[in-house]
Amino acid sequence: MHFTSSNFETFDKSYRANFFNSLNGFKSICLCGTISENGIENVAIFSSIFHLGSNPPLFGMTFRPNQENHQTLNNILATKYYTLNHINESFYKNAHQTSAKYDHFTSEFDACGLTPAYKNNLKAPFVAESNVQIGLEFVQKIDLEINGTTLVIGSIKEVWVDDKNIHQDGFIDLEALGSLTSTGSDAYFKTQKIARLSYAKVGKEIEIIG
Amino acid sequence: MHFTSSNFETFDKSYRANFFNSLNGFKSICLCGTISENGIENVAIFSSIFHLGSNPPLFGMTFRPNQENHQTLNNILATKYYTLNHINESFYKNAHQTSAKYDHFTSEFDACGLTPAYKNNLKAPFVAESNVQIGLEFVQKIDLEINGTTLVIGSIKEVWVDDKNIHQDGFIDLEALGSLTSTGSDAYFKTQKIARLSYAKVGKEIEIIG
Repeated sequence: MHFTSSNFETFDKSYRANFFNSLNGFKSICLCGTISENGIENVAIFSSIFHLGSNPPLFGMTFRPNQENHQTLNNILATKYYTLNHINESFYKNAHQTSAKYDHFTSEFDACGLTPAYKNNLKAPFVAESNVQIGLEFVQKIDLEINGTTLVIGSIKEVWVDDKNIHQDGFIDLEALGSLTSTGSDAYFKTQKIARLSYAKVGKEIEIIG
Repeated sequence: MHFTSSNFETFDKSYRANFFNSLNGFKSICLCGTISENGIENVAIFSSIFHLGSNPPLFGMTFRPNQENHQTLNNILATKYYTLNHINESFYKNAHQTSAKYDHFTSEFDACGLTPAYKNNLKAPFVAESNVQIGLEFVQKIDLEINGTTLVIGSIKEVWVDDKNIHQDGFIDLEALGSLTSTGSDAYFKTQKIARLSYAKVGKEIEIIG
């Protein structure tokens, strides 16, 4: 089946969102923990997180346009700190519930049955239920004029993960840790490893290394 | 186990790359098909693709710094078109092999056992083996000063996918289509759906919808 731009124009808003949100493949999903200057905690689910570099370690994430009241973005800009926390099957419904539109005075931690955890003086709450907890410092905001999306770049300051799930070469076994992946805006998946493959070289056969 | 910035500084280059490339979670992986102005085809694996908007439909992808000779990026800038093609278990080793450093005169399609396919006058080759084929037009390049990474934004022009795997609401069933996900730079995974969940609303219980 072949779709072109002229087909896209006939998609209604919801069909269009589901279609293009699925199309880019399986995604990382994380809960982003923040706190406002007034001390109101927020936790929200994001699937737009990407690796931007390892030295320094940087992640990017995007925010939808026209979200003047976006509590996560406002809190990051105000306090300069945020956390990203992987999602497990044991609390994926709680995580999904954070996407409901709670008012500014409600902590989604309380409303959605998740537990804030403060560690090592980082000024943002981690999600206690998560097996992979990442503390970041805000670095840069880039407004993308093409569609009003905001790109936020953060520097990784802290990582909390059980080291029995980290291989000798630094690879983190996210399947063993139970991290989920998602497609679209509402589908959640476990994974099943096929293989880790050897570094690819010209003229050399690929080998399974793990 | 707790890692902080001072630990990160003790990581060697390879450990650091594996660690931070795993840390952001499961990723979309696609083969990017391009052609040079001289007609030399290129196909390369990318795990840095993200959804940037549905109206217009836009994807972003990032390129590492200091890659003056990056054939994919040069071809996109020269011809303005590229394709992204999901990866299945039947050719994931071929896909991984495209990351080897072939010279500029070699087509990775030939070298890695993949088949270029031209469709509907789009000026870039699709990967014939792929079940989800996306044709894009270059829109914008943004150089990120913080680490020299390049962000490329493309507009989706064409999508080729079997419509029996598209639900009535526009959701594309990537698991049924066999699309894989990855972590780090070398680990490949199949998925197992847990559930699609209902749209989250304040005070309403989440339901499984698929």
